[in-house]
Amino acid sequence: MSITQLNQQVRLVKRPIGVPQATDFEITTEPIPEILGGGDVVVKNEYISLDPAMRGWMNVGKSYIEPVNLGDVMRAGGVGRVVASSNEKFLVGDFVGGMLGVQDFAVVAGGKGIRKIDASVAPLSYHLGTLGMTGMTAYFGLFDVCEPKPGDVVVVSGAAGAVGTVVGQLAKLHGCTVIGIAGGEDKCNFLTEQLGFDAAIDHRKGNVRSALRRAAPEGIDVYFDNVGGETLDTALSMLRPRARVAICGAVSQYNSTTGVSGPKNYLSLLVNRAKMEGFVVFDYAPRYGEAIEKMGKWLKEGKMKHLEHIVEGEVTDFLPTLLTLFEGDKLGKLVLKLK
Amino acid sequence: MSITQLNQQVRLVKRPIGVPQATDFEITTEPIPEILGGGDVVVKNEYISLDPAMRGWMNVGKSYIEPVNLGDVMRAGGVGRVVASSNEKFLVGDFVGGMLGVQDFAVVAGGKGIRKIDASVAPLSYHLGTLGMTGMTAYFGLFDVCEPKPGDVVVVSGAAGAVGTVVGQLAKLHGCTVIGIAGGEDKCNFLTEQLGFDAAIDHRKGNVRSALRRAAPEGIDVYFDNVGGETLDTALSMLRPRARVAICGAVSQYNSTTGVSGPKNYLSLLVNRAKMEGFVVFDYAPRYGEAIEKMGKWLKEGKMKHLEHIVEGEVTDFLPTLLTLFEGDKLGKLVLKLK
Repeated sequence: MSITQLNQQVRLVKRPIGVPQATDFEITTEPIPEILGGGDVVVKNEYISLDPAMRGWMNVGKSYIEPVNLGDVMRAGGVGRVVASSNEKFLVGDFVGGMLGVQDFAVVAGGKGIRKIDASVAPLSYHLGTLGMTGMTAYFGLFDVCEPKPGDVVVVSGAAGAVGTVVGQLAKLHGCTVIGIAGGEDKCNFLTEQLGFDAAIDHRKGNVRSALRRAAPEGIDVYFDNVGGETLDTALSMLRPRARVAICGAVSQYNSTTGVSGPKNYLSLLVNRAKMEGFVVFDYAPRYGEAIEKMGKWLKEGKMKHLEHIVEGEVTDFLPTLLTLFEGDKLGKLVLKLK
Repeated sequence: MSITQLNQQVRLVKRPIGVPQATDFEITTEPIPEILGGGDVVVKNEYISLDPAMRGWMNVGKSYIEPVNLGDVMRAGGVGRVVASSNEKFLVGDFVGGMLGVQDFAVVAGGKGIRKIDASVAPLSYHLGTLGMTGMTAYFGLFDVCEPKPGDVVVVSGAAGAVGTVVGQLAKLHGCTVIGIAGGEDKCNFLTEQLGFDAAIDHRKGNVRSALRRAAPEGIDVYFDNVGGETLDTALSMLRPRARVAICGAVSQYNSTTGVSGPKNYLSLLVNRAKMEGFVVFDYAPRYGEAIEKMGKWLKEGKMKHLEHIVEGEVTDFLPTLLTLFEGDKLGKLVLKLK
């Protein structure tokens, strides 16, 4: 390939209100810089990660990470292959992962913020899922924040999603009773039949509370929340003493234009001497290796399944593909495979 | 005194809706049992503790403690003097404390659930306040749940209340910067001038958020919440990374008839990797001695002040006195001294 090839990029140009619109983005096309130096690396993006958290990055204001500046390429995790390098750590042909952005080619200044990927461990896309941010989020959120004990009743919302499928499988491997909350009967059947969840509750059927009561008659020790809203409130109402609630996300709230709905049942924390804790996966970066090693092994041994939904397209397919996340029809990790 | 003296008792006969009414209670009068055995002890109540938590005990439903049964004497902490005893651990004349109830005399079956009080350490009423449940709540809630470090910015709501005044003083002794939120200018002045708080915010003046921004321009490390509602939301919006929020109570919500208002800003926990944790003082019973010893010493040395508001009356004054708690006009611990 030639580094004079064109680079299509998706740039954030407006702060979305509610559901992001096509007009919030602009597609630009520019050549890849021909001259490299100072350790710069050019990466051809092969898979782009699509995550609910991206909605938050589009907002202005204080968060765990800087918002994407207007005019900048939309931030996104990606995996790809080095196509040009002035950096001895990254050779042409190496596979790398990092925040490569929604673009065909990422120019990584000084080679900073990317990591080499051993593509022999698992297919490339897995390094965005179970062996990437998604898996790291599940692993550290579950084990470090929730501290489950074998025998604990663990409930996870967004259970059929990228993080949820990993959380549930990890909790099962840890000897917990696992209940997933997901949208749709097919997804629920998949969780119990294919992933070994003890129970799955279809929130589209309504009455999550009574279903949860049946599935966990003695209450919940751990609740791993990906969705917020009513589901969080229902889970809070069923905490057992000393329960741990991890706030991983709130996908039901991200596109709200009327403000976030707060958990009315938060006083259950008091009654049950329970804690609710937020976390950000990046804090665990020094320990990613531990999680990758363990989960890589479990994947190889067939003790875990990697679930992904791959959409093939171009970077211009980013927004419509991202929006399907909020419709909740996908199972596992959603990735955009660039043609 | 004779054990045939009459015992006036306040019994809960209806579950209050919103603010408790006189009709939710019944005053009964009965003789004190003349015959004692099996380790039973009769205690003449001298001071009755009035606490926001009592509102919760009147509700039916799962909580950290059984609700008061309809027809039963209203639960209340009390301190008093043993007037008859069949128990070698408690002699006539001994001072004791425990859940003595809203009544003139408590018959304590088997002498269980009461503890001896050393009245030489501090005046009797202090054993309901700084050296009683109130002080225990402040001590363990602050040190065990919030784990403050010297230099931390600690914010406490209900700061002029029974628990708040102790929390703030303890945090100051620990080397923290302490900001109180209270209702009324006089109370705020008292906190800064008499108790050494670094700042006090009068929520009745409105705009707690901007006042808190001025007082804690770099945010909050610890928030000890006694009130819930908007104040909790405001504090959540100002958390620093790894902040700790203790949920001690929610006095703004206890009499709500429209349901509890949930903290809309709970996602600040995620952004800031913060935790929000509830606790129940009774869990720390094995360690009360440690707190009593330390705070007793600090009181004697003048390093802490005990603040109480004593209302003299009869058990029939229980309800009107309790309700003044929710008006928030009192400074420190509210107790009913029985004539």
